[in-house]
Amino acid sequence: MPNCYSFLLAFSLLAQAAIAQPDPRPLLGFTPARAATEYALESRFDAQLKADDLRQWMKRLAAHPHHVGSPYDKDNAEYMAGLFKSWGYDTRIDVSYVLFPTPKLRALELLAPTPYTASLTEKPVPEDATSGQTAEQLPTYNCFSKDGDVTAELVFVNYGIPRDYEELARRGIDVKGKIVIAKYGGSWRGIKPKVAAEMGAIGCLIYSDPKDDGYAQGDVYPLGPFKPETGAQRGSVLDMPTYPGDPLTPGYGSTKNAKRLDYRKAPTIAQIPVLPISYGDALPLLRALAGPMAPEAWRGALPIPYHLGPGPAKVHLQLAFNWKTEPVYNVIATLKGRELPDEWILRGNHHDAWVNGANDPLSGLVAELAEAQAIGELVKTGWRPRRTIMFCAWDGEEPGLLGSTEWAETNAAALQQHVVAYLNTDNSDRGFLSAAGSHALEKFFNQVARDVPDPEKGMSIAERRRALDLVSGTPEAQREARDRADLRLGALGAGSDYSPYIQHLGIPSLNVGFGGEAAGGEYHSIYDSFDDFVRFKDPTFAYGVALAQTMGRTSLRLAEADVLPFEFQGFANNVAKYGSEVKTLAETMRTDTDKQNKLLAEHRYEAVANPSQPLLPPKAQEAVPYLNFAPLDNALAKVEQSAQAYAQARKAGAALPADRQKALDQLLYQAEQQLLSTEGLPRRPWYRHQLYAPGFYTGYGVKTLPGIREAVEERKWAEADEQIKRTAAALERFAGQVSRAAALAGPAPAQ
Amino acid sequence: MPNCYSFLLAFSLLAQAAIAQPDPRPLLGFTPARAATEYALESRFDAQLKADDLRQWMKRLAAHPHHVGSPYDKDNAEYMAGLFKSWGYDTRIDVSYVLFPTPKLRALELLAPTPYTASLTEKPVPEDATSGQTAEQLPTYNCFSKDGDVTAELVFVNYGIPRDYEELARRGIDVKGKIVIAKYGGSWRGIKPKVAAEMGAIGCLIYSDPKDDGYAQGDVYPLGPFKPETGAQRGSVLDMPTYPGDPLTPGYGSTKNAKRLDYRKAPTIAQIPVLPISYGDALPLLRALAGPMAPEAWRGALPIPYHLGPGPAKVHLQLAFNWKTEPVYNVIATLKGRELPDEWILRGNHHDAWVNGANDPLSGLVAELAEAQAIGELVKTGWRPRRTIMFCAWDGEEPGLLGSTEWAETNAAALQQHVVAYLNTDNSDRGFLSAAGSHALEKFFNQVARDVPDPEKGMSIAERRRALDLVSGTPEAQREARDRADLRLGALGAGSDYSPYIQHLGIPSLNVGFGGEAAGGEYHSIYDSFDDFVRFKDPTFAYGVALAQTMGRTSLRLAEADVLPFEFQGFANNVAKYGSEVKTLAETMRTDTDKQNKLLAEHRYEAVANPSQPLLPPKAQEAVPYLNFAPLDNALAKVEQSAQAYAQARKAGAALPADRQKALDQLLYQAEQQLLSTEGLPRRPWYRHQLYAPGFYTGYGVKTLPGIREAVEERKWAEADEQIKRTAAALERFAGQVSRAAALAGPAPAQ
Repeated sequence: MPNCYSFLLAFSLLAQAAIAQPDPRPLLGFTPARAATEYALESRFDAQLKADDLRQWMKRLAAHPHHVGSPYDKDNAEYMAGLFKSWGYDTRIDVSYVLFPTPKLRALELLAPTPYTASLTEKPVPEDATSGQTAEQLPTYNCFSKDGDVTAELVFVNYGIPRDYEELARRGIDVKGKIVIAKYGGSWRGIKPKVAAEMGAIGCLIYSDPKDDGYAQGDVYPLGPFKPETGAQRGSVLDMPTYPGDPLTPGYGSTKNAKRLDYRKAPTIAQIPVLPISYGDALPLLRALAGPMAPEAWRGALPIPYHLGPGPAKVHLQLAFNWKTEPVYNVIATLKGRELPDEWILRGNHHDAWVNGANDPLSGLVAELAEAQAIGELVKTGWRPRRTIMFCAWDGEEPGLLGSTEWAETNAAALQQHVVAYLNTDNSDRGFLSAAGSHALEKFFNQVARDVPDPEKGMSIAERRRALDLVSGTPEAQREARDRADLRLGALGAGSDYSPYIQHLGIPSLNVGFGGEAAGGEYHSIYDSFDDFVRFKDPTFAYGVALAQTMGRTSLRLAEADVLPFEFQGFANNVAKYGSEVKTLAETMRTDTDKQNKLLAEHRYEAVANPSQPLLPPKAQEAVPYLNFAPLDNALAKVEQSAQAYAQARKAGAALPADRQKALDQLLYQAEQQLLSTEGLPRRPWYRHQLYAPGFYTGYGVKTLPGIREAVEERKWAEADEQIKRTAAALERFAGQVSRAAALAGPAPAQ
Repeated sequence: MPNCYSFLLAFSLLAQAAIAQPDPRPLLGFTPARAATEYALESRFDAQLKADDLRQWMKRLAAHPHHVGSPYDKDNAEYMAGLFKSWGYDTRIDVSYVLFPTPKLRALELLAPTPYTASLTEKPVPEDATSGQTAEQLPTYNCFSKDGDVTAELVFVNYGIPRDYEELARRGIDVKGKIVIAKYGGSWRGIKPKVAAEMGAIGCLIYSDPKDDGYAQGDVYPLGPFKPETGAQRGSVLDMPTYPGDPLTPGYGSTKNAKRLDYRKAPTIAQIPVLPISYGDALPLLRALAGPMAPEAWRGALPIPYHLGPGPAKVHLQLAFNWKTEPVYNVIATLKGRELPDEWILRGNHHDAWVNGANDPLSGLVAELAEAQAIGELVKTGWRPRRTIMFCAWDGEEPGLLGSTEWAETNAAALQQHVVAYLNTDNSDRGFLSAAGSHALEKFFNQVARDVPDPEKGMSIAERRRALDLVSGTPEAQREARDRADLRLGALGAGSDYSPYIQHLGIPSLNVGFGGEAAGGEYHSIYDSFDDFVRFKDPTFAYGVALAQTMGRTSLRLAEADVLPFEFQGFANNVAKYGSEVKTLAETMRTDTDKQNKLLAEHRYEAVANPSQPLLPPKAQEAVPYLNFAPLDNALAKVEQSAQAYAQARKAGAALPADRQKALDQLLYQAEQQLLSTEGLPRRPWYRHQLYAPGFYTGYGVKTLPGIREAVEERKWAEADEQIKRTAAALERFAGQVSRAAALAGPAPAQ
């Protein structure tokens, strides 16, 4: 299958060559002649990609559970190091030593009104060959929960995010001294115990409601891909929005002898015991709740009325962990550049999993291996990249980006000096391109997506993605899909290994995958297996090959370009959009606050309240002041001007001599570092990027212009004013760097 | 309780009188002096209302099942006739003879893959005294289903409305020769077998999904008010959007010897067998379906993946009915007017039920009885209304507005000659005022709602309703709740006995109730009982008394006014709004059609389709032409001018002599008849009103400007043009009548 598509592409290139016209597909950073060479190279690259290789690697790597500290985790690292070496890479395994707690004791009982002991056990299925490897599997748990032994009434808190507690308060419900039960979803899981603890709860259960990824979505495993009754989602609850990586070594590498915090004082470890459970175990607990009905939007697909409690359900939760330090094995394979060996393209995917991890992370990792092998084959023909390419397979991503973060912190100075871009993948299945990253790479990446065919439809992956936006996007997305030349790159939040590179070090980053056609309930369970993957996810590995084609092109073009293919007008357009969003946010909050305060003053909430279902009025809020957005607007104007200047310079400029190319490259890839602030974001200095951060109260989900946006959301007006200035300063530094690049790139345009 | 509120109101009147200022609450149609008399009268009226009377009447009337043809149905009619007589009314029981099929045989089996025989039986509960009256209860069935014995594969069709079949077609599913299973909701139930038959299905099941009124909404009966596992919703599937009333006597009274159609040829009887079932019986059937997953919005709260089928579930449905003619007993109690006996105020509520019918219909009926009793008490003190008041208790509403329609058809000429307004109630529980009706009564009814206190909050029922719109209305409703003096009356669709009066005879009508705080799943089941009502609906009967206060004021003011309190500026405003809506509808359809046709031409739907879950593109549609709305706009302008002229005339005019008052009254209450067209609506001539009709494909739900709106919705462009002209002509006739009223009411305003 994939060879067929490679052929189609090659054929189309040949057809174009035959009619001897200028290539209609210009490549940013390449002269037309060198673009033709690059296309020929990519065609040879594609020819090396074989779906069956991906299949065999996945089968091998997923054959046993391979979490941090397991024998197979190390075995996989050594196996991959062997592959990289065999393909001609200078390969090493870098080891860090990280805290990795595993369960010693897990007990959950419903004490009243009807006793029930939770099974906390996922049931193996005969149709899945690895699901019965019980002795090797980590039990279901939330890594970095606190130890605890608590007994209390239960309260259902929906997704357990701050606004859910506002709804509970309106119903007179306080979780102080209670155990909460939250649904998975609505935020990254680690937010749930964090907010629950802030609200005074003493324990937290997180369950997967069948509405979200169980029978309400389709047939359950193994008949279909959705979560069966005993399935539970493992996962970290480390407070990654504060800082990821080893909780004991904040901001520096966890080398063997590094100074470490006492784990009982580490600020990113959950403050209360927290445990994930299946919907089979959740049902008796939720059924035993009384009290008001949950708001309609909170209710799931279990066949019960969803009451809020508190009680009469009374729950006993006991958790104890082995607080061990474990080695994590990062595999680093380097192919030195022929002309610019000090400019590094970093390509990474993690290799550790919660259990067998076929989809998460191996679906992305096998694409990376395919890219490395194909490039290795090209090298064997005498070719070598202009710049250095490094393939990384991270360990310890699941517990909290441990491997990648510690490696980034350990090697921070060299990375900021040399890395052109960090290119990440993780789980990826089938369907539509999804790409997020530094906006200065937007136009470049659109050219990559223009040139990769979709395995199912033949058209480019960019066109297929555009069709999705046209057919089912928001009205705004539909409009842009018609009018905007480039697909927007999403902004990067958290959730995979790019986080330390972009948000801590300011290294331009991309994260890419395919999805939308293979939803399931296997995530972080024993059912994320090779058998599940080839049945439901990407059975032919055609999208695995498409991912390798995409990321391979991305690496090769970055490695081969005359001048690095950064472009800033798209960047300016995106950041201006974020600026509009935060202004609109403040305006909407002002209108809504005024409206609500008026309704409160008029006692309208009391007027509509149903006496038999009490609902207190919402809390009055301070009116939203007008904020001074002028510094941001002025900075955005400068970014736009500098971007124009750079575009004109590149258009006008002749081919540059090698030394100017090199100097220009450095200005370009280090522009992103200008967006870091020394202080970092309020209350989380590890996050230094002023444009992108995971939400402090949402987790994975990105907040763009996070300093400003979160200050507004949390109604910290003085902080908002300060963050507007700090963000504006970062953008001004960025504009300055781009202006310098423009000056270096060609004759300055007439002013 | 209610006496307390009466007292408050009386007290406020006294307080106002004490400070000797003009009454700040003017009454439309009354001089200030007569308004004061009217207020005093209403205060005496209120004092007669006793919650305990309502409770005792409900208990008595709900003590046994009292459907059409049952002994207790007749017994109730005679009991009420006795009450009316005892209160001084000239009372008679008018009998019509109507077709009323009851089940002879009901059988439903799942034949494959796993046999299951449906119980089709609601389970009595010990906590409900009448639920065990099994021998007297009608079994669960859909009245006016066809006889049938069919076996076929099953298909799940969501709500079974036309756009659901478009979704099925996109998934390659055809219901020809199949049995469909639809959820209750999304339309009036009779639409489901009608559309299913049009699509070629041979049988139809309708079940109550627990998401809509079962455990997903709250605790089930008797712990809470929601539908238990065996509960099923009886109900008519007569094609009432074509014509209501006896299916054998379309458009004329079903007197003893009237000419009747053969029931096998009656056009309003369902064309395929149809049966309502409980979710307990639906679960095994739905669980046995395979095929594509139902679209997300279709899925209910049963603990299964909702597949569409067809099959492998194979179903056998057998139904046979006794096609008997039964008498229906309309109780008519008349209190002749002292000055204008030929102007009749008609107040009605039905008395028949599907089973015990405490909420439906007795909650509204006991309010009507309270009004009649209170007015009877006033008469005993020597007072008598200026105009005639008639209290009606209709029989046979449940099977298809049989009693009210046949009575209206039998007495059509007299009713069009004499009836000032028809005032309807039906089921009513607790919470917020809900009122719909002829818009010329909007300002009048707002004054009524201004003067009735809400039992829970003390403020007026109008203010409480306004608060609801402010707190949780749509953005438009919120804006209007701030800016518009009057609450809008809703428009009347179908669903209760006002239908023949307004839509067939053009008699100004109102329908009023309270709701929003006492949802449940008892509707048309054995659980709609006295025990259920006093537990969950209106335990103190405070809202029953509020309803009597509301409808009593409405009757008394209409009976006592100097000049009937019609007002046309609000009317003009509402109809102009409907005009804007249909124009926007056509414009939105044009834009959407163009957009979809463009996506089709570009093959975007194919581009996004998931090969493993086939989804065909939607059908291409003819582009929407520009329609000539000018006749409508011109007519609306005339309505607005005439309304202004009438308002100025009434403002300017001195008190009128009696003969001019009488002539003016008649112009006013017969203005609504100008809105009838001779031809009626396309394909349903019984519906003659050009402003209001139940939707041909929605049932209960009103369609305003129905001729135009449905032609546009169904893309019948020539018909739309014709209906614009016909509706415009009706509005021009109306404007002419209002102009004549203006001329009669006072000196013509300067043109």
